[in-house]
Amino acid sequence: MTISRTFLSAAVIGAVALSTMTFSATAQEANPAVEARQGYMQVMSLNIGVLGQMARGNTDYDAEAAQIAADNLVTLNQINQSFFWPQGTDTDTIEGTRALPAIWADFAGVTDVSTQYATAVEGLSGVAGDGLDAMRAALGSVGSACGACHDDYRQPR
Amino acid sequence: MTISRTFLSAAVIGAVALSTMTFSATAQEANPAVEARQGYMQVMSLNIGVLGQMARGNTDYDAEAAQIAADNLVTLNQINQSFFWPQGTDTDTIEGTRALPAIWADFAGVTDVSTQYATAVEGLSGVAGDGLDAMRAALGSVGSACGACHDDYRQPR
Repeated sequence: MTISRTFLSAAVIGAVALSTMTFSATAQEANPAVEARQGYMQVMSLNIGVLGQMARGNTDYDAEAAQIAADNLVTLNQINQSFFWPQGTDTDTIEGTRALPAIWADFAGVTDVSTQYATAVEGLSGVAGDGLDAMRAALGSVGSACGACHDDYRQPR
Repeated sequence: MTISRTFLSAAVIGAVALSTMTFSATAQEANPAVEARQGYMQVMSLNIGVLGQMARGNTDYDAEAAQIAADNLVTLNQINQSFFWPQGTDTDTIEGTRALPAIWADFAGVTDVSTQYATAVEGLSGVAGDGLDAMRAALGSVGSACGACHDDYRQPR
């Protein structure tokens, strides 16, 4: 089994755009691709939250739980996101998304921040069980990668 | 890096139940654990949907896309779900969930259906790129596993 780590595969986006997963500007019903990518972010958020609560001292550092959360982020990052991002699911085209058109227009930039995030979560997984200070420092790099993507590719509320 | 495939870790559920992730019966705000597990289901659903559309003949069979979707299901199943299921997040306790108390009361049964699902998605991943008929048959086993869990552990709408 080969798991592609492609964050955004231009070829598959093209294929999906031609399939039944293309949505019109007027479609108001739930879009399964949008729901899935937002759901994916909720899974990320829960696991980052476990670590963030420890980093802020709101919960005791727990090496086992920290390692589970960090490993989950690595595993989650191995999901191939091709189906998440069909053409026509940006903020200019549909409601219920904060995904800016820049995601589709700037594939190189998205790839860069994706690589930054992948490096950060792999680093976090490597040290999450090694104590609070090590975990906290590595979590900071993950937060920077999250922010880098959100700054450029997510519509502010 | 070790990825635990534990669907429901009783020990971690206990730990989480004692942490800040416990929610009261009156809490109406979004529960991050509930949002994450529902989001996880959306990611499953999107990928199963790609395969289901092919199986029903609504889209052409595409070996590459089918393999991506099947591999995604295997990867997703490697997420450790410990943080998804804190005590006090069942239908008897909070709103906004269909997770029946039986999930927490019948750990052995949940483990059984989880194992059935894991076997089914691994089987699917093994044949998803081998043609429509092979994929469709293996997808049927995945659907049976989904149904087995939903029948016993998910509240009907």
